[in-house]
Amino acid sequence: MTTRHTSDDSGAAGAGAGDAVDPAVRAELSRLRESIDNIDAAVVHMLAERFKCTQQVGHLKANHQLPPADPAREARQIARLRELAENAKLDPAFAEKFLNFIIAEVIRHHESIADGAR
Amino acid sequence: MTTRHTSDDSGAAGAGAGDAVDPAVRAELSRLRESIDNIDAAVVHMLAERFKCTQQVGHLKANHQLPPADPAREARQIARLRELAENAKLDPAFAEKFLNFIIAEVIRHHESIADGAR
Repeated sequence: MTTRHTSDDSGAAGAGAGDAVDPAVRAELSRLRESIDNIDAAVVHMLAERFKCTQQVGHLKANHQLPPADPAREARQIARLRELAENAKLDPAFAEKFLNFIIAEVIRHHESIADGAR
Repeated sequence: MTTRHTSDDSGAAGAGAGDAVDPAVRAELSRLRESIDNIDAAVVHMLAERFKCTQQVGHLKANHQLPPADPAREARQIARLRELAENAKLDPAFAEKFLNFIIAEVIRHHESIADGAR
């Protein structure tokens, strides 16, 4: 990444990249960033809701001695999300990485629920 | 993780963890998984929209010689998302990890846009 940082970077890092920038460009950047912030807020709330569901799954699994991980279910989820991503013009490889990132967190939760239920 | 896998796991991996399970438990698990799948579809579409915004940011930055990364903006995003996460009862540390995961992908995009603009 350091190879990308050019001479304008030293000022930009401190002052928010705005000093020498055309006001129209700055306004366009702000507009896009506001959309990104709105989307991030939506995603955080979606993920909060998702973890509420997976916490319930975790308790169900712990109470009925089901294993925390379910490779067959995960394979189906990955195939489905890759297809959804493709239709939404999102890189399917990224969608898969994203799901694996979430599932790793969920399995950590399930393991600690299972440990608590012992 | 292997320490969590108990004797019921060998069958579960192949047959979908359903064979020896109470039908009511199976139904509850299905209900929760359907919600998880709905949320995942929503998040994938949100992320597709987010990357459309960041692609535009990338082009704007490349065309105006702005650096791909903006540490001050990222620090503000992280602080804001941690607060949103806390209010939504999502682990703030996880929200921060999540944002870093997304930003790493965005910076990769920005760098390749900047390389293309040279």
